[in-house]
Amino acid sequence: MAKAVLLIADGLGDRPIKRLGDKTPLEAAEKPNLDKLATEGECGLMDPIAPGVRAGSDTSHLAILGYDPYKYYTGRGPFEAAGIGMDVKKGDIAFRCNFTTVDDKMIIVDRRAGRISSGTDQLAEAVNGMEIDGVQVIFKESVAHRGALILRGAGLGANITDTDPHHEGAKVLKCEAVDPEDAASAKTAHVVNEFVERSYRLLKDHPVNRERIAQGLNPANVILPRGAGVGPSMDSFETEYGIKAACVAETGLINGVARYVGMDITEVEGATGGADSNVMNMAKAIVEKLQTVDFVLCNVKGADIGGHDGSPEVKIEVIKKLDEMVGYLTKSVPEGTFIVLTADHSTPCSVMDHSGDPVAITFWGEGVRTDRCTKFDERSVTAGGLGRIRGIDVMKIVTQLMNVAEKFGA
Amino acid sequence: MAKAVLLIADGLGDRPIKRLGDKTPLEAAEKPNLDKLATEGECGLMDPIAPGVRAGSDTSHLAILGYDPYKYYTGRGPFEAAGIGMDVKKGDIAFRCNFTTVDDKMIIVDRRAGRISSGTDQLAEAVNGMEIDGVQVIFKESVAHRGALILRGAGLGANITDTDPHHEGAKVLKCEAVDPEDAASAKTAHVVNEFVERSYRLLKDHPVNRERIAQGLNPANVILPRGAGVGPSMDSFETEYGIKAACVAETGLINGVARYVGMDITEVEGATGGADSNVMNMAKAIVEKLQTVDFVLCNVKGADIGGHDGSPEVKIEVIKKLDEMVGYLTKSVPEGTFIVLTADHSTPCSVMDHSGDPVAITFWGEGVRTDRCTKFDERSVTAGGLGRIRGIDVMKIVTQLMNVAEKFGA
Repeated sequence: MAKAVLLIADGLGDRPIKRLGDKTPLEAAEKPNLDKLATEGECGLMDPIAPGVRAGSDTSHLAILGYDPYKYYTGRGPFEAAGIGMDVKKGDIAFRCNFTTVDDKMIIVDRRAGRISSGTDQLAEAVNGMEIDGVQVIFKESVAHRGALILRGAGLGANITDTDPHHEGAKVLKCEAVDPEDAASAKTAHVVNEFVERSYRLLKDHPVNRERIAQGLNPANVILPRGAGVGPSMDSFETEYGIKAACVAETGLINGVARYVGMDITEVEGATGGADSNVMNMAKAIVEKLQTVDFVLCNVKGADIGGHDGSPEVKIEVIKKLDEMVGYLTKSVPEGTFIVLTADHSTPCSVMDHSGDPVAITFWGEGVRTDRCTKFDERSVTAGGLGRIRGIDVMKIVTQLMNVAEKFGA
Repeated sequence: MAKAVLLIADGLGDRPIKRLGDKTPLEAAEKPNLDKLATEGECGLMDPIAPGVRAGSDTSHLAILGYDPYKYYTGRGPFEAAGIGMDVKKGDIAFRCNFTTVDDKMIIVDRRAGRISSGTDQLAEAVNGMEIDGVQVIFKESVAHRGALILRGAGLGANITDTDPHHEGAKVLKCEAVDPEDAASAKTAHVVNEFVERSYRLLKDHPVNRERIAQGLNPANVILPRGAGVGPSMDSFETEYGIKAACVAETGLINGVARYVGMDITEVEGATGGADSNVMNMAKAIVEKLQTVDFVLCNVKGADIGGHDGSPEVKIEVIKKLDEMVGYLTKSVPEGTFIVLTADHSTPCSVMDHSGDPVAITFWGEGVRTDRCTKFDERSVTAGGLGRIRGIDVMKIVTQLMNVAEKFGA
């Protein structure tokens, strides 16, 4: 069976930048291997979700993997929880959480509890495993002041408000059902409020916090959940496409999406998620994985960091690394392997956040309709053969190239 | 009223082929009239269903005629049955069938009963018209070992398994409902199993089969239904668009789709469905039909045969015939007639089956936005004015060009 690599450069897309001579970072960078891929491949523009829609990395990856985010994405919580290795099940309500510092009137003193960097595992242990009104509470710490919460029980809904007022000096908000007649969400809201109160009672005098106070640090004395979402039920990637898949990524969010659709997760040494990441180690991991699976999803995070920081220079540095990576891949993947190169969204340096601009995409491999496009960048690919496609089309195109897609009709 | 011809070259789309100098058959063939149509017309790429989706001819024709196949297509049976002139009604369950040879333990000896070529009308007569548990059984022979079955009665479902194990030496399969709790499909499965058994009892000693056995031929002693589908209810083409339509096609499958939407079916002498087909007779039939109807759908099958056989040469031969046909049509259709030239899907010679690659399309006639595209092939049309459209868009575009489409809004 033909194999495939889907290489997603996070936030790679950009807009013309004055100090680059009105070029985008992709247009300005030397990238002979990316251009060779475009020259030999079939190119076009891709809207991760739909034209103009500002995609998140999670919703975009869902779409590109063939899962309609409007159907499967109810909130960030479930993907964050899955990303740190929690087993989110169908019907679970999952949340992103912050360890926060409050005073005894529940006024926010420090939303990130002094960006606490150790001891959260012990704090997590204090709240994990409790039961509230028959609902099971599963909590796990993540990096720094972050964590994730799963509520597991019958008859829960996720259409609720956040507890985090998002600024200091404000009082912790009561969680409420958005629709007062939505009993399932009202039940969740009640459990959340109870969880917040109990977390305060359990954490305020916890040894970790007594020690922090002694050191003049803000105690992590309450946990505030937000971004509630229902654990979605979706067919696994293998069920959906009949191919085994692995993920080589640097962030919990992407690993969370991959875990959700049943992909193998691979840890790569030196993959930092920054511009300094060892992407060649990621490339080697891809080639190694291809020996046992049919499909590898790889997300390289660096370009997105450059965009968020407003730094075309960082983006160009990451593009050069991607170029080296692609040069290695085209020479090292098994014969007959397809490579799809694209981004999950644009993160223009001028916007310093995700924008709704489409991104370049190239399908490379045996039999593709090579077109006249010879450069891999946002404007050159508009002359490509693909025209303008959407994220949700990508897996359909890849699997038909791999000749593993089912025919619809006779 | 302006008239229109929709000319669909079955399976015409392809991928670059090494021994054609990395050209597709369309790129390699001499086809001055197709190129003239592209030069004078408006060109683009079309995904019959959606990007990457491997379309069947039936689902693709439904889409191109404006009927969403995801809504109307439940299985091949109803279209096969309609294609041989059976009147499939809403709620009927219809099947494709094979006359097959089995031994007395119902083990398959010959799936196609020696490709029986005569006498199946008499065998059909023996089983047609029976009733099983209040369900009416309508059976008709088709060409060679083929036939179609309709089950008509209340409370039937089509979500059932096939009886044909698809290889010799295996036992005839019991038909079962896919979902055990689906009572309607369970009822159908029961009737199908009873039909298979009765067909064996009625056919094994039938004079036609006694004669075959005497001649050393495999008897057609059982009938195996497969491809169950529900007779869909859709508005006729005339109701949908307010225009009268006829179909000039070579295969039962396409005639079945056309009959379904209420088109006139036209038999053309010498239209064989192969590369040797007399397509000029088909062209003449189109022109003749245009005297009494507003719209003619024509399907020329040959290119698909070339693709399935992996023969670029056959495809190129058919393309030359299509070229002659289009040359004749542009000179012979009534003034003001639009011609739409496209394919129902790609059947790349390298794949030898339908692929999900898009196909070329040209709209030709008074008032179209002629573009810079001067060649009718998969890659030249990407420079055309249409961009990348879908099958479901085609009738909307044609009817607005014909000026018979209704306005949506004020």
